[in-house]
Parts: sequence; structure tokens; C-alpha cells
Amino acid sequence: MPELRRDPVTGRWVIIATERARRPGNFFDQQSNTFDEDQECPFCASQEQEIYAVRDESGAWQVMVVPSGTPLLHDSKKFKRRGHGMYDIINDYGVHEVVIETPTHTANMADLEIPQIQRVFDAYIARSQALAKNTKFQYVLMYKNYGWAAGSRRIGHARSQIIATAVIPANVQEKFSGAKKYFEYHDRCIYCDIVRQEIETQKRVVVETEHFVAVAPFAPRFAFELWIIPKNHHCYFSKGVVGYQEDLAKILKEVLLRVKIGLDDPAYNYVIQTAPLHKTKKDNRWLTLEEDFHWHIEVMPRITKTAGFEKGSGFHICSLPPEDIAEYLREVEIECLS
Amino acid sequence: MPELRRDPVTGRWVIIATERARRPGNFFDQQSNTFDEDQECPFCASQEQEIYAVRDESGAWQVMVVPSGTPLLHDSKKFKRRGHGMYDIINDYGVHEVVIETPTHTANMADLEIPQIQRVFDAYIARSQALAKNTKFQYVLMYKNYGWAAGSRRIGHARSQIIATAVIPANVQEKFSGAKKYFEYHDRCIYCDIVRQEIETQKRVVVETEHFVAVAPFAPRFAFELWIIPKNHHCYFSKGVVGYQEDLAKILKEVLLRVKIGLDDPAYNYVIQTAPLHKTKKDNRWLTLEEDFHWHIEVMPRITKTAGFEKGSGFHICSLPPEDIAEYLREVEIECLS
Repeated sequence: MPELRRDPVTGRWVIIATERARRPGNFFDQQSNTFDEDQECPFCASQEQEIYAVRDESGAWQVMVVPSGTPLLHDSKKFKRRGHGMYDIINDYGVHEVVIETPTHTANMADLEIPQIQRVFDAYIARSQALAKNTKFQYVLMYKNYGWAAGSRRIGHARSQIIATAVIPANVQEKFSGAKKYFEYHDRCIYCDIVRQEIETQKRVVVETEHFVAVAPFAPRFAFELWIIPKNHHCYFSKGVVGYQEDLAKILKEVLLRVKIGLDDPAYNYVIQTAPLHKTKKDNRWLTLEEDFHWHIEVMPRITKTAGFEKGSGFHICSLPPEDIAEYLREVEIECLS
Repeated sequence: MPELRRDPVTGRWVIIATERARRPGNFFDQQSNTFDEDQECPFCASQEQEIYAVRDESGAWQVMVVPSGTPLLHDSKKFKRRGHGMYDIINDYGVHEVVIETPTHTANMADLEIPQIQRVFDAYIARSQALAKNTKFQYVLMYKNYGWAAGSRRIGHARSQIIATAVIPANVQEKFSGAKKYFEYHDRCIYCDIVRQEIETQKRVVVETEHFVAVAPFAPRFAFELWIIPKNHHCYFSKGVVGYQEDLAKILKEVLLRVKIGLDDPAYNYVIQTAPLHKTKKDNRWLTLEEDFHWHIEVMPRITKTAGFEKGSGFHICSLPPEDIAEYLREVEIECLS
């Protein structure tokens, strides 16, 4: 039965439009996710601008962090704020780095081996800890665009992005505010409660490992949106993940593989949701973030487009119930992971 | 110079990525906006499910409102709320109507004559006033999807949508909250201030008429996003527009025509931003909406796609400064309007 569900963190209502539902297998309307193999791959070439690298015993790089070739932000300038009448402006102060996830020309992180995905997390941890030392930065954003429809160039080499900014992004702030409100009311972390309820009902669980659970969220913004949530509470990815990298690599690989096989290799984004770097004044009080936020990863296959309704209303429409999505992805046949 | 700008209403930061800018004319990467003229047009056929119609002197309908053939919400049931553990659910109680904007098979509202566009507004006014009588409804959303990339079916007949819902959509609430905060601080309406500053500087003005101004907003979420704001303050579209329909039809047609000619007939959405129907309890206090919200129309040509960065961070990236967008659209040559 069609219904409206509220995202417990942000308060946004989602229309679960079951009457419009189609079978997941022929659900999507995606652009073909092809790569242009005629141009030379800039990520295979030896890297002269190394910022950080994870190396093997022979000294050969396995994961390398370099400056973005098309940076959105620049750290060459001083951070400056100014006004223009009623409007607020800051300059493009920040850092934009690219994490080259493998020395081999492999497009999809789903096809990397688990130890290699672990090395990518090691690079994320090292870089976010290094960037956090700059007290001007309020947030380190780690994310991936895979495939053309996800905003990537047509170069078939797995990579992700790290951005450090001097302001807290609005979508991120929305999640902190929602989680904080829940904590104030219940004295419990909302994500810890989600983990508990989801594992209890099992209906939306796609994969569960010792330390993580991957679920189709109760009120997804997009069909096939998936959250990977650690069972252990920690507000920061870079601290909370330490010791659990192997288990996270295992669950992330399995999620990406189920998406790749089940949805015919779609474009996707993932974003690591972690707390801001420093305590932040907001509405005249200091936010404490240790208890009331819980890092996690959001994976968003890009198989649908948003229409005017979503753009204007802030309602999202999900054409398949997340329970069906979870069941479909659980049943995708994958080979033994390595 | 690239910079970050803050939307004064919502507080969201937008990266104005001037270094990535291209000429507006060859800027976009759109899917072809074609219509499938082989199938019979359901909007040309005589309408048997008339809810409301604007007729000419002979009694022939000029604009007709009918139930949506693919409704997202249904008014056949009672409004019901329920919980599921920590989650909130309501049923799909609501109304979803289609406004057929012309009896002729014309695809784009930009090609309708000004008196015909006025009749569309008359239908919006009549239907939103009628729907407002149901005290269960908290919001009436009026919007248009034109073209495939904007979420429309490939039927080349101008139409728009009206949805009445029992909850206030999150994006809409975000705007009210932002406008209210500004009003509390300044004792002035934020949109009145925007109108004043934009007319003074002229840099982002695309069209100005006696009662309205169309601007490329200071911190647009999307390239070519445009706002049509009335100079007279009113929180409700259905009351505030009365007496100004002709002038609004004139400026909306000119905006849509400049978009059509200047950007090669792109898909677009527009959404009428109006206040909620009833005073609403939020954070334990009643919102008064008369002073601190100001209705307007947002027009969003769909010529770019959002990448992982936007999805995860809540930053939007605009690859052209709105000043350049306004200049480009002002210079588009259009014929005399009628």
C-alpha cells in the first residue's frame, strides 16, 4: 500500500509509491555507463604530485593521493569572508584531493580485492587526520563518483575525492541537527537505535557483518539508496573505523558487488558521513558531537532522475519499497568474496 | 574569481566555479527534448473527469483541471498516522490534479499567448482556494514538469500539476524557517529585501515588469535557476496574485521564452513557492506566516546533472556566475510578446 514515511534523522517525508513499482531488474532508466578507453589514463601514469601513498614492501604505490586536476577549492589563498549588501561570500579556500584507489586500470571499486579497499580507507584516515590539523577547516568530505551519470569523467580508473572546507555543508548540518534533536529527547543516538531496530526486524538488511550492517533505509530518498552503519558508536570516521577497516572493506565490497551485478553496473556515488572537525557554534549554543552523531556511509546508485515534484516540495518519491529493494539485493548471486 | 556564496534564505553554500565555466550557449549536456507524437494525446481528448474549467464565451474549455492519471496521493481514504518502532508513517492521503493548460496540442507554456497563461493562473487560484477548505491539508503545491529530463512523459501537451498534502514538505519548511529567522533579526521580509537589492544593482535581473522582477538568484543551486518575485509582499500565491495575473503571465512567458530560445528548448520545472495553509506548530511555537514569507516562482531549466559532491555535502556547484546567466538571458533576442 502506498504511504508516506519520514526519515527519522532529517524529518523529510518520502512518498513510497508502490503503485508505480516495477520489478527491480527492469526498473531503471540509466545512461550507458561506458568509459572512453582511447584517451590516456591520467591515473595509471606515474604520479609526480604525490601527497600521500600507501606502498607495498617493494616500495611500489598501491593507493595514491594527488591534488585534483580540476579542483573546486584552493588552499593557495587565505580564508576570507565578505558581504555584499545582504549577501554573504567566502573565497574558495579549501583542499580538493583525488585518491587513486589502485595502480591497475580497474574502473569499479567493486572489483578491487578486500585488502586493496582497506588501503583506500587507510588513505582516507591519514588524509582526514592531516587536514584536521588546519583549524580553518570545519569539514572533511570523502566521496566517490563512479560513472558518467554520477558526475564522473569517462575514465575507467577507480578513484575517490577528498574535500576540506571552511564551512559546514547544509545537508550535513541537517543530519547533525536531526540526530542532536533525537538525542536530546531520547538520550540515545538515533543511528544506534536504527541499527538495533533494523537488525531486529531484518526486513531492510542487505548484508550484516560482525561490526557493520548495510540497510535500505526506512525512508530512502532514491531507489536503491543504501546505508552502511557501524554497530559501534563513534562520531568520526577517521577514529571510529580504526581496527575495523577489514570488516568495512568486506561489507562495502559486497554492497557494491550486489549493486553492480543486480543493477547491471550502474553509476553510483558514495559519501562518508562524519562529524565536523571542531565544535561549532550554532543558534548561540555549542554543539557537542561525540554522543549525538554516528558516522556511516551512504551509497547512492544513480538509476532514477528527480522531477519537479522533488525539486519543489522536498518530498522524494521512491518507486519501490526499501523492503523489496533489500530482498532483491540479498538474492543477487555473487561469488565468494576475496 | 571562484567563490562560495550563501543562499540568504536557506543558508546553503553554493560553489560558483567560474574556472570551470563555459559559454552559456554550449554549456549544457542535455538529453534531447523530443515528444512521442505517435501515441494519442490524452490531454487533447474531451475530458470526462472535469474538476474545474475556465471556459470561453461559447462554453468551450480553455483550461481544464482533471484528476491525475498516475496519482501520487489519493483522497479516497481517511488521513491516518501510525508508528513502526522509531519510525513515522502516514497513509497516502492527498489530492493530485493535472491542469491542462490549453485545448490545442502545444507542448511548451512559452508558446501560449499571455491571456491563456492568465487562465492557467485562474485555475491555480480556484483550485488552491477550494483545496484549502480541507483542514487536513497543510500545503498546496503547484508545479510544472516540461520535457523528459524534467520528469515528464513524452506527450507534447502543456500541463502542470497540483498536489495537496497533509504534511509540510521539508524544502518548503526550510525556506519558511530561513525567512522567519531573517524577519526576527531584521523586522523585514527577506524577499522584499532581495527585490530591493536586485533592482538596485540590476546585475542579476533578467526581466522586470511593473509588479514583478525575474532574477538569477545570488547563490543558485543550478545553472540558469531563475526566481520570479512579486514586488508586493504577500505570503500566499492564491491571494497575492489577484489583480496581477496579466503582469505575471507577461513576465513568466518572457522568462520561459528566453530560456527556450537561449538554451535550445531545454526541459524545465517551475514551482510556485507559497505559504502553508494553516498556522503550524513547530518547535513548540506557532509560526505566523503573513509577514515572514513572500510567495514567488522558481524556474529550473534542467541542463546539468548533480554529482556525488552535491549529493553528499549539500553544497551545490554552479558552473556559471548568475551575473553572466542574467546577462546572457537578457541578450536573447525574442519577438514582441502577445
